[in-house]
Amino acid sequence: MSRFFSQKYSRLTPYTPGEQPKDMKYVKLNTNESPYPPSKEVYEAVMEEAKKLHLYSDPECSVLTQKIADRYGVSKDMVLVTNGSDEILNFAFMAFCDSKRGIAFADITYGFYSVFADLNGIPYKIISLKDDFTIDPGDYYDLEENIVIANPNAPTGIALSRAEIEALVKKNPERVVIIDEAYVDFGGESCVDLVKKYDNLLVTMTFSKSRSMAGGRIGFGIGSADLISDLNTIKYSTNPYNVNRISQVAGACAIDNDEYYMSNAKEIIKNREYTKKRLEELGFEVLNSSANFLFAKSDKISGQDLYLKLKSKGVLVRHFTKEKIKDFNRITIGTRDQMDILIEKIICILEEEK
Amino acid sequence: MSRFFSQKYSRLTPYTPGEQPKDMKYVKLNTNESPYPPSKEVYEAVMEEAKKLHLYSDPECSVLTQKIADRYGVSKDMVLVTNGSDEILNFAFMAFCDSKRGIAFADITYGFYSVFADLNGIPYKIISLKDDFTIDPGDYYDLEENIVIANPNAPTGIALSRAEIEALVKKNPERVVIIDEAYVDFGGESCVDLVKKYDNLLVTMTFSKSRSMAGGRIGFGIGSADLISDLNTIKYSTNPYNVNRISQVAGACAIDNDEYYMSNAKEIIKNREYTKKRLEELGFEVLNSSANFLFAKSDKISGQDLYLKLKSKGVLVRHFTKEKIKDFNRITIGTRDQMDILIEKIICILEEEK
Repeated sequence: MSRFFSQKYSRLTPYTPGEQPKDMKYVKLNTNESPYPPSKEVYEAVMEEAKKLHLYSDPECSVLTQKIADRYGVSKDMVLVTNGSDEILNFAFMAFCDSKRGIAFADITYGFYSVFADLNGIPYKIISLKDDFTIDPGDYYDLEENIVIANPNAPTGIALSRAEIEALVKKNPERVVIIDEAYVDFGGESCVDLVKKYDNLLVTMTFSKSRSMAGGRIGFGIGSADLISDLNTIKYSTNPYNVNRISQVAGACAIDNDEYYMSNAKEIIKNREYTKKRLEELGFEVLNSSANFLFAKSDKISGQDLYLKLKSKGVLVRHFTKEKIKDFNRITIGTRDQMDILIEKIICILEEEK
Repeated sequence: MSRFFSQKYSRLTPYTPGEQPKDMKYVKLNTNESPYPPSKEVYEAVMEEAKKLHLYSDPECSVLTQKIADRYGVSKDMVLVTNGSDEILNFAFMAFCDSKRGIAFADITYGFYSVFADLNGIPYKIISLKDDFTIDPGDYYDLEENIVIANPNAPTGIALSRAEIEALVKKNPERVVIIDEAYVDFGGESCVDLVKKYDNLLVTMTFSKSRSMAGGRIGFGIGSADLISDLNTIKYSTNPYNVNRISQVAGACAIDNDEYYMSNAKEIIKNREYTKKRLEELGFEVLNSSANFLFAKSDKISGQDLYLKLKSKGVLVRHFTKEKIKDFNRITIGTRDQMDILIEKIICILEEEK
């Protein structure tokens, strides 16, 4: 730390992204990327757009914003596109929370929520999951704080129903409820259509998972025109050209190719259920996932050991050291071949443990 | 504004980017882009990388960061790459300023500095340019505040010398001095090598101007390892994957092709001096620019009128309504052909004014 660093950040602990090792080629099941490359049309759109890299990108992301609006059945002024969904989440924390208006979220959820809160000096209320790792929606009724819920939740993969979300949105009419639907295309029920009914609901999504574009950094938020207008005030006071030119066309083209991506998502769901069954056959406890990952533990090996041994055998999964979930690993669902390699390595590791 | 918007932003006025009109094709001399496309190698690198868009980008931007470090003769831990240079500037305002530590900048300079300050609740001291639109470095000695100076300055184009910058960095050893060198490749003297001598100096640069990549959104900061470490704390608490995969390889390749870009910059300088001479022949007052734009006024037509008439004739320049500079227009330097069109339209407009 330099002697110039503002005191207000002196105890800030940044978010740790999943490791991106460069030492060797892994079967990479640790950051919930899609195993499928972008569609051919996206690739062609990128090539065409690369010729114009010397010109600024459209700060309004007009084309992409309109396509997202059409895809989700809302008007264009109800959509804001950002540099990944971390950016829309940070904007929402900035815009709607402050030292007096805190935010509530689950004890086991996306690890960035507490970092955004700390960064912005926002107090937060942590609500425990039930023993079965589900969220009790009733815990979120009539809160003093704004609310952020990942649905499906990460790293558990467990989803609330649309009706459960609607109930808690209704129960907090003077609070902003942020539903982070990064993983919704893998079996969750989206509540995006509820933004037309509730002006306190903001739904955030990403192109990093089902749309095979983690490297392109596109996220977006959908909410009432007033909420989006506030978020735009933050955007234009932070980084007006926040989404680069190539990602804008790639994203627009991905929306055009919706069928390709949604059919890939179906494949992932199939592979997930296959992998869950295989893991259960090996004695694992596996939570019911509606996401592109599984959260699993075995009483034959510690979470940490399994993670390390898989890594030494060339398979990367994600392990969290937090007490309540340290027995688990989060396993991204890839292709069937990748999942078979995972299972084969796990069988081998369990044999060694005997 | 929604009823949920935090009071602290209720009077925030966002930055207004230069217009990006979609109604017709303009000779676009309003946002200081390069008229030259990226190099062939950059284009090829983009095509190759597009196949991997489904995988997250390297949050450390390792390859690009190393190349920038090598290019500027510093170590890798003295460089931070961001999503455009607006992002590194915002990070620096966040990290080193707060309600108690303000920031000082010129009354006529990059319009975003006051927005960053307002966004982050940072008080600021505005220091007037001299009547000839130059900065008096002595005005920045022994300040209470941190300092940000665009060098060359925008929209004037006027540069301070490296020695003048060094003097004021020395005179503020307990303040962070940010030198925004977005335009330095067009004739300014960079002070980037001074970061090795002064731990309170942060130099920011961009790929948007001389490196023909405004649409790729790459900025970076160079400073002591301690300053960069603080800025990384902000980055990893905001948006760890802030630079997308394609921009990272395009940027790295642009550094490899330095000769191409620096030779383009020389061409721009030639076109600038040519345009300055032509404008002066038409009776314009034109400030001495070390940037890829000219700041010019004529007593035959108001700044606003010239801007509007040029626009109606298909040439876009940038006009600012601020009292002190409202007689001027900022004209980006493009190709010789573009500049000839500009001059021809101005001659035509001045004829009509008679």
